[in-house]
Amino acid sequence: MIKRPTLLITLMIMAMMAVITSCNSSDTYNPNKPFTAIEAFPVPERPAGQTHVLELRAEPIDTVKVAIIGLGMRGQGAVRRLSFIDEALVVALVDVVPENVERAQQTLEGMGRPAAKGYTDSESWKEVCESEGVDLVYICTHWDLHAPIAKYAMEQGKHAATEIPAALTIDEAWDLVNTSEKTRRHMMMLENCNYDFFEMATLNMAQQGVFGEIVHAEGAYIHDLRSMLFAEEGERGHYWNMWRLKHNQEKDGALYPMHGLGPIAHALNIHRGDRMEFLVSVSSDQFGLTEYAKEKFGEDSDYAQRDYAKGDINTTIIKTIRGKTIKIQHDVTSPRPYSRIHMLSGTEGFAQKWPRTGIALEPNAHYWYSEEKLDSILQVYEHPIVKEVGEKAREVGGHGGMDFIMDYRLIYCLHHGLPLDQDVYDAAEWSSIIHLSQVSVANQGMPVQIPDFTRGAWNELKTITYHKHN
Amino acid sequence: MIKRPTLLITLMIMAMMAVITSCNSSDTYNPNKPFTAIEAFPVPERPAGQTHVLELRAEPIDTVKVAIIGLGMRGQGAVRRLSFIDEALVVALVDVVPENVERAQQTLEGMGRPAAKGYTDSESWKEVCESEGVDLVYICTHWDLHAPIAKYAMEQGKHAATEIPAALTIDEAWDLVNTSEKTRRHMMMLENCNYDFFEMATLNMAQQGVFGEIVHAEGAYIHDLRSMLFAEEGERGHYWNMWRLKHNQEKDGALYPMHGLGPIAHALNIHRGDRMEFLVSVSSDQFGLTEYAKEKFGEDSDYAQRDYAKGDINTTIIKTIRGKTIKIQHDVTSPRPYSRIHMLSGTEGFAQKWPRTGIALEPNAHYWYSEEKLDSILQVYEHPIVKEVGEKAREVGGHGGMDFIMDYRLIYCLHHGLPLDQDVYDAAEWSSIIHLSQVSVANQGMPVQIPDFTRGAWNELKTITYHKHN
Repeated sequence: MIKRPTLLITLMIMAMMAVITSCNSSDTYNPNKPFTAIEAFPVPERPAGQTHVLELRAEPIDTVKVAIIGLGMRGQGAVRRLSFIDEALVVALVDVVPENVERAQQTLEGMGRPAAKGYTDSESWKEVCESEGVDLVYICTHWDLHAPIAKYAMEQGKHAATEIPAALTIDEAWDLVNTSEKTRRHMMMLENCNYDFFEMATLNMAQQGVFGEIVHAEGAYIHDLRSMLFAEEGERGHYWNMWRLKHNQEKDGALYPMHGLGPIAHALNIHRGDRMEFLVSVSSDQFGLTEYAKEKFGEDSDYAQRDYAKGDINTTIIKTIRGKTIKIQHDVTSPRPYSRIHMLSGTEGFAQKWPRTGIALEPNAHYWYSEEKLDSILQVYEHPIVKEVGEKAREVGGHGGMDFIMDYRLIYCLHHGLPLDQDVYDAAEWSSIIHLSQVSVANQGMPVQIPDFTRGAWNELKTITYHKHN
Repeated sequence: MIKRPTLLITLMIMAMMAVITSCNSSDTYNPNKPFTAIEAFPVPERPAGQTHVLELRAEPIDTVKVAIIGLGMRGQGAVRRLSFIDEALVVALVDVVPENVERAQQTLEGMGRPAAKGYTDSESWKEVCESEGVDLVYICTHWDLHAPIAKYAMEQGKHAATEIPAALTIDEAWDLVNTSEKTRRHMMMLENCNYDFFEMATLNMAQQGVFGEIVHAEGAYIHDLRSMLFAEEGERGHYWNMWRLKHNQEKDGALYPMHGLGPIAHALNIHRGDRMEFLVSVSSDQFGLTEYAKEKFGEDSDYAQRDYAKGDINTTIIKTIRGKTIKIQHDVTSPRPYSRIHMLSGTEGFAQKWPRTGIALEPNAHYWYSEEKLDSILQVYEHPIVKEVGEKAREVGGHGGMDFIMDYRLIYCLHHGLPLDQDVYDAAEWSSIIHLSQVSVANQGMPVQIPDFTRGAWNELKTITYHKHN
């Protein structure tokens, strides 16, 4: 026979376990106690002696000596574009495929630029980061190497710029933030879409209050990449070692939120007076890759039989601490026209780029501006930086010119010792949606807190500034 | 001194309370135990002897005798439209404003139709529901009375049709479902947008597989109603007793999801082979109404000083049991062009109505169809019902014709004893988003289960059918 106290304790343990088990489940809803977003990734304390790098300025650099690591798709274009900029000098070219290094050297030669030092070892990026004659490490590898190389570059005293995303996990994002704060080196994610013409004009309009208070914004990466995802080595548009398909096999969430989020985040002054508080994220199931693979490779093909984790379309809603909402979508497998949406909706007006480029302003915001009025207002609010370099950018090209404006601004700010347009917190915040959305998706859209990567400094600045040298 | 077992029990009670307290909060995230959507509204057991009303057929009615309750905005149009339909006869007109009844009588007279019996008491809707000479109670009152009148009408043996929404709460939705199942009377929510021309054509395309498997759909009610919300008695476009402003004062969520959701839900065969499983819903804070009121009525005006619960824009993501996603938005206070979006994205193609009307299909879905090809495909897939009655509908009007097609179909199906296009489960499901989204919004976007109003019968039918008489 069990003694009474023991029985009581046993019953209580059972009750406790029942309560614990019922947490994280549908049994726990209590209308009188609001549910709040899960802190899946607590903010780590800032290491002693470290301060934030908002508006970080580094010593001006007369000629910015650039090492480009990764010369597949994006790296080749960077070599060419940087060759148009007098204050930049490409000094090192790194890729595991020797032909890629060779092609880049030919580009330099064709541009009348001196040959750079070539590297083809898989570990040579470390040597390049360590070498004395480099100011900026410009990273265009596949996604997995972005954060490790950027971190190592800063640790070696170099500024780092990386193709998007800057980080695939929250840990990587904190690594970048901590390393930049510790080393006082710049870390910029190369979000080119912030420099596209409509985006620049609407940023300018936003900053001048044309839309009133911006309440809601939308961005996306909707781009049918199926043929590229399945392109094997040597086929047109292939990703090295099919790395991008692997991401779609292994992860479900907003895998590439930065293009949509970047321009919006600046228009909303994220971490310059507002910050992203939490998100919810839901993906459809996966249909598109399997169906495409069946049609292209046959029902029994390996590609048709594989499991792909990534749902065709992911939709993520972010709420900011100032009460704004941001909707971000990711879809690289559905047959539909390209879109980054880029929509801003405020108390005084509205702008959207895809699928219809237009603006509507009070007192007649029910109606879209005519083509004529649209052209006219876009001219009136042309961004000063576009006025300065837009024409040359269109000549140089790179997604219509935005890639060149991005490189131009990066070199310009390093040359003049100015803060960069995009700081390490932008890189961390925009990239963090990748990991955070995966957690939300895996939990039926559970709200997840977004870490404050500035650790309390998000309200120190009141607006984003793209600095100019006086 | 406390005895040891007592101390132990006390400590355990404290521990248990801590655990309970930490439920519904950010402390409970456990990566090894996926969170699932909250069942905030458990499905009540179906009362004994009751069966579902999928594909319900009632006795054919030679001339459908209609009582119209509520003759403000929508009711007046209904009187006129129904007068064009030979198989319908308006026999009763109910409104608390006598002038509204008088206006409706004049409409009947102008249409060469016999006068109807007029009622102006606030409780006369009951008398009308009870009266013998009525087949269909057609409800156009403010939102709060839709469900109570519809329920009472069915209890009195009448079919019920109500303006949207059919129900404001989950309880009301179950009331309608149970009453229809018990009485075997039709209950249709008058979702006119299902009958708009592009929506009908794309439904037809969806059913013929033109888009492949539809994976994602979007709908919205984006309509700047600020001037109407604040219009007082007698002012242009006013709502009786400013009832609509009150909803915006008191509730935050997707307050009017039906226009966007209806056409999509049919294209996705919701409760005909698929069902909505859970949703997440996030609203921006409120900015627009206060700012508008300040400008229009002054900083110190009552309207400018009030609290409005409704955030300017609500975004809701719904996931279905078959892995599809639906995005629904609600915004009636932002200055921007009207949009219901109406977007369908499948494995073979894509269609969208707002802000750009277009279609894109494989093998070239990267590109929108030209104007010419768009016109041509919309003609090819013109819905059979539009072929039949579209021309007349455009003549009669009512939101360009869709209102007439809706009334025509309602009377047609009642006349021929056919199942209605929209059943009580549609009404319950589409309306339920109002209450469910409020729960999610109040809990930082917490995922909330969507009740299966068919109680297990959602997979019995394999597609939606708009029935035709042979």
